Amino acid sequence: MDKLRIGLIGAGRIGRVHAECVATLPGTTLQWVCDRDTESATRVSRAQGGRVTANPRDVFEAPDVDAIIIASSTPTHVDLLQLAVEAGVPALCEKPVDLDIARVDEFRQQATSAAVPIAIGFNRRFDPHFAYLRERIASGDIGSLEQLSITSRDLKPGATEYLATSGGIFKDLTIHDFDTARSFIPSIVEVFARGATLFSRSIANLDDYDTASVLLIGAAGEQVSITNSRHAAYGFDQRVEAFGSEGLLTVGNVSDTSVRHWSATSVEALQPYQNFFLERYSQSYLLQLSEFAKAVRGEPNRCAGYDDGRAALMLANAADRSARTGQAVSVDLDGMA
Amino acid sequence: MDKLRIGLIGAGRIGRVHAECVATLPGTTLQWVCDRDTESATRVSRAQGGRVTANPRDVFEAPDVDAIIIASSTPTHVDLLQLAVEAGVPALCEKPVDLDIARVDEFRQQATSAAVPIAIGFNRRFDPHFAYLRERIASGDIGSLEQLSITSRDLKPGATEYLATSGGIFKDLTIHDFDTARSFIPSIVEVFARGATLFSRSIANLDDYDTASVLLIGAAGEQVSITNSRHAAYGFDQRVEAFGSEGLLTVGNVSDTSVRHWSATSVEALQPYQNFFLERYSQSYLLQLSEFAKAVRGEPNRCAGYDDGRAALMLANAADRSARTGQAVSVDLDGMA
Amino acid sequence: MDKLRIGLIGAGRIGRVHAECVATLPGTTLQWVCDRDTESATRVSRAQGGRVTANPRDVFEAPDVDAIIIASSTPTHVDLLQLAVEAGVPALCEKPVDLDIARVDEFRQQATSAAVPIAIGFNRRFDPHFAYLRERIASGDIGSLEQLSITSRDLKPGATEYLATSGGIFKDLTIHDFDTARSFIPSIVEVFARGATLFSRSIANLDDYDTASVLLIGAAGEQVSITNSRHAAYGFDQRVEAFGSEGLLTVGNVSDTSVRHWSATSVEALQPYQNFFLERYSQSYLLQLSEFAKAVRGEPNRCAGYDDGRAALMLANAADRSARTGQAVSVDLDGMA
Amino acid sequence: MDKLRIGLIGAGRIGRVHAECVATLPGTTLQWVCDRDTESATRVSRAQGGRVTANPRDVFEAPDVDAIIIASSTPTHVDLLQLAVEAGVPALCEKPVDLDIARVDEFRQQATSAAVPIAIGFNRRFDPHFAYLRERIASGDIGSLEQLSITSRDLKPGATEYLATSGGIFKDLTIHDFDTARSFIPSIVEVFARGATLFSRSIANLDDYDTASVLLIGAAGEQVSITNSRHAAYGFDQRVEAFGSEGLLTVGNVSDTSVRHWSATSVEALQPYQNFFLERYSQSYLLQLSEFAKAVRGEPNRCAGYDDGRAALMLANAADRSARTGQAVSVDLDGMA
Repeated sequence: MDKLRIGLIGAGRIGRVHAECVATLPGTTLQWVCDRDTESATRVSRAQGGRVTANPRDVFEAPDVDAIIIASSTPTHVDLLQLAVEAGVPALCEKPVDLDIARVDEFRQQATSAAVPIAIGFNRRFDPHFAYLRERIASGDIGSLEQLSITSRDLKPGATEYLATSGGIFKDLTIHDFDTARSFIPSIVEVFARGATLFSRSIANLDDYDTASVLLIGAAGEQVSITNSRHAAYGFDQRVEAFGSEGLLTVGNVSDTSVRHWSATSVEALQPYQNFFLERYSQSYLLQLSEFAKAVRGEPNRCAGYDDGRAALMLANAADRSARTGQAVSVDLDGMA
Repeated sequence: MDKLRIGLIGAGRIGRVHAECVATLPGTTLQWVCDRDTESATRVSRAQGGRVTANPRDVFEAPDVDAIIIASSTPTHVDLLQLAVEAGVPALCEKPVDLDIARVDEFRQQATSAAVPIAIGFNRRFDPHFAYLRERIASGDIGSLEQLSITSRDLKPGATEYLATSGGIFKDLTIHDFDTARSFIPSIVEVFARGATLFSRSIANLDDYDTASVLLIGAAGEQVSITNSRHAAYGFDQRVEAFGSEGLLTVGNVSDTSVRHWSATSVEALQPYQNFFLERYSQSYLLQLSEFAKAVRGEPNRCAGYDDGRAALMLANAADRSARTGQAVSVDLDGMA
Repeated sequence: MDKLRIGLIGAGRIGRVHAECVATLPGTTLQWVCDRDTESATRVSRAQGGRVTANPRDVFEAPDVDAIIIASSTPTHVDLLQLAVEAGVPALCEKPVDLDIARVDEFRQQATSAAVPIAIGFNRRFDPHFAYLRERIASGDIGSLEQLSITSRDLKPGATEYLATSGGIFKDLTIHDFDTARSFIPSIVEVFARGATLFSRSIANLDDYDTASVLLIGAAGEQVSITNSRHAAYGFDQRVEAFGSEGLLTVGNVSDTSVRHWSATSVEALQPYQNFFLERYSQSYLLQLSEFAKAVRGEPNRCAGYDDGRAALMLANAADRSARTGQAVSVDLDGMA
Repeated sequence: MDKLRIGLIGAGRIGRVHAECVATLPGTTLQWVCDRDTESATRVSRAQGGRVTANPRDVFEAPDVDAIIIASSTPTHVDLLQLAVEAGVPALCEKPVDLDIARVDEFRQQATSAAVPIAIGFNRRFDPHFAYLRERIASGDIGSLEQLSITSRDLKPGATEYLATSGGIFKDLTIHDFDTARSFIPSIVEVFARGATLFSRSIANLDDYDTASVLLIGAAGEQVSITNSRHAAYGFDQRVEAFGSEGLLTVGNVSDTSVRHWSATSVEALQPYQNFFLERYSQSYLLQLSEFAKAVRGEPNRCAGYDDGRAALMLANAADRSARTGQAVSVDLDGMA
């Protein structure tokens, strides 16, 4: 089979991750790298191949592009998706679709009726551990799913400039957990959230939270508890527990080593976990690309779609409103925002 | 030192646990066993010693009783505490103080100004694992405490008749977790809760919940997440995670055995946990009695007091209200209910 | 049933453990405490009851003694056992029977044909974890047993004076592991051993070893690997692995706490293990006494007998010879030494 | 830097592993694939590139080959190494060098004085877990190394035809553990071994063992205990424990998943381990190739050399002799065999 020729828009940190995946996956090749900052684009191109441009239109109009990956800054996502749909080019777009749900809704009709697949980059769905957890649940290992607990803590807060444009903890950090929750319990009907600033003055100054707890209720009454923090002394903390009528399944943190240490002060000690999402979720980016390639080829796939991106944003908005009002917020993920 | 002579009121399941503790602890002896059902009282007396009566007044008026343990049915607690205070006899009373906060408040002034110590039976405070967790936090091992996660699931629901008079899941099951939470973060200012009936029709018929999730907010913004269920296929599930600025401390479930099994279908498998609170918390009842003995002798001790019992009930009430209204409920544990 | 009246001979460290067990077990009571050092005997008597004497004959001739426990120094064991047999008093004797196999063999005929039960104090047989391991093997969980691995390390060497009379590492430390091995694979036919002094000059001066490895071969070809050391920085190290045709069962170390710690330097860290045999094996002494009480009452029991004590000593002798010659030593545990 | 052009001799199971590594590693490219069975060679070439030949001389004489990998059958190894040395081509040769130590010694002088590097394929040295264990020991985490325990069990025996030419369990399976032992304690002075056939009649018919235990003694008295079996119901079992004066470090088995299961029959259960050496040690083959590339470029590297291959074979021979005589066998790994 011919390799899928990918055009990458955005050559920043996440763009580089995608470029590496495209170069690694046997069935894909990097054809174009586009970034306003052509130096970044050139660096990526040198490492992983592809022609360089500063103008996204070059990519959409190129005859040798089978699909694009949108990894540019969030405010550009919807415009680029629109160009993709108009050009008839399948697109994998980084999350979030946009920080403004109105903008997301505006484009919704066009996105969901487009002839070409649009996938939203919730890569953690493809994490082998979480995916295997879903398999085990699906195979009945814990009976019927009743409670889901997600612990998700960053190693430390990003730079203040980054946080200032991130849309706040619910749209930036928790949004992954909203999608993870929905990958187990798609239909969420209520959100309650609480945020606090317990350790970061600069986050407090942004009127944002460094610590958050969220409770989601599923359509069948299932309860999802999400625990977030912007820091964790012991490394990137990513755990899920799924409790059902017949048992419990857990996904623990992932360690680079199986070496444990016994000494006079402690025993069974392991090195801190994989420290950053690029390490912890490296495989999931690759698997996501592989699923997106299936989507491009019209094959069944597990990609998150436009409405999954919209749902996560609606949940983030609801969480933010709940945190600021102290009231549970009802949501209708299928209806209008 | 002379042995503390204990009068036990109530010879049911919990009464028997207390009787055994009194007989086991070197510094205490069982002097009286009182139960309307004199057959039960006699059985306890035969096993652990003590004179038998059906009338609590016999115990209060006896010249050979240094302290009493109240393990009778909940509606009798306040009356018996009142008798104890009037008789000048120290009392350890099983939780909850009462299901009705008005009744608890009515007696509050008298209880908290009594010359004799009144302790409320939140035995889990004395569990060696939880107690050690508090020590480690106090010694600074995780810096400042930011988030607490309590998972607390029963093996299976009690009999319907029991549940019908239990006051509901928040006053019967979660009440332990409220006290556990307060043993780490005494000052709770807000409660949000959600309940559901996901598996038990008989619990649904009682207009009670079989599944609950609660979020507590501490005065300094700390977040406490409590996850409850009335069943757990794999045994009594009792875990706590304390997350702080410098790390994480966890208490896992307790197993009777360290034997693990590797086979063609799974590896590192352990037998299900200690199945019931009488096994899991057997030591904590003993340690609680030992602390109560200190209280009786006027020594410093870690017993939960009357206001701790009241606080747990206020939190249960707030949780119930929150669950039924969908709104966070503010609480002032020091003020009037 | 009337309580079994126990006469204790020897009020040193192990004697005190036995005294406490006798006082704790509901079916036994301490009737006599005998030690040449009457101060020690008096201390034990004050704590756990019993009349004091310096003369063992007082105990054997007393009309109110149902059984004796011999916890005096090793060289006195056989003489006291002989007195017990002649007096018709059941005896539980601490290991080793004697350091000299000739002495053990001399008394063998009388011991094994005695009308009263003689039990040898290999308490680890009764450890609940090891006992449960045997149950699981017996129930077929790992098919047929092929390899057994025993890791057994002390926290640190005893005092030099103690070590000087201990008979050497094989008769003092490994002897427990020989009995543990035989509790899984009774018939051992060959011993290979190696000893080294890797860290203790005072042990080297005694011409003893501080480190040892032993390989036992069972009659059916099973292999038992024993790894010993006189020190372990992380606490008393007591583990067993049983490998069979269908799987593996392991017994890990036992911890007082289930609290684990996550920090910037390590994760999942537990406190060092229970540090000393009196803590790790406290339950096993109690369970051993309970089994001995069954023996006294003529009921089926799991006590180690005289020939088990002899077998362990034969294996220790064989290990010592092997370590000193570099040759595997064949043993016939049923035959003459 | 130009890519290292590799000629592969042997396109069987291990040859394919090497071919894949060459294709994956950025700095290497597969130039030639040689196998008497040209169909196998062609399959490898199609997947990973390279020209095909049935004659090894084509590879040695080719002007476009920078190094060769020898993955053909064991009896051809020394001849091919000789060709490599004569042609001045660096070679990475699969273990064992030969089954006959005389043949190995014959070529020793030429091999160790060759102008080009010769590496022997003890890939497990490069396993990240074992390598990290060595780092931790080197950094003093357990003080001075006293005892090493290696558990190494295959999933199940290979085909009888394979076993018949494998040279027996010590040269085929344990040989890896001998090299692992030497990567921690290079200087071994004594070997004791015992073998048994506990489950496989076909292995018994080959006069080989399906089960083995080996004890190695290091020059400083260190003890190494190796436990082997040709089967393990629960998956490929590969563990190491390093015990030192200050603590213990362990490497456990590696699992594909961090998902654990709690049910009514067991808790904390994990799926069986990575089942086969190709999965468990996939990374180590890649890292070995990367080290070999360093060797070819004349850079410092951690490759096992010819004398490491010889030492492992000497230990295997000694183990076999010990198992058959019941005597410990002294070895001088630096001296003549």
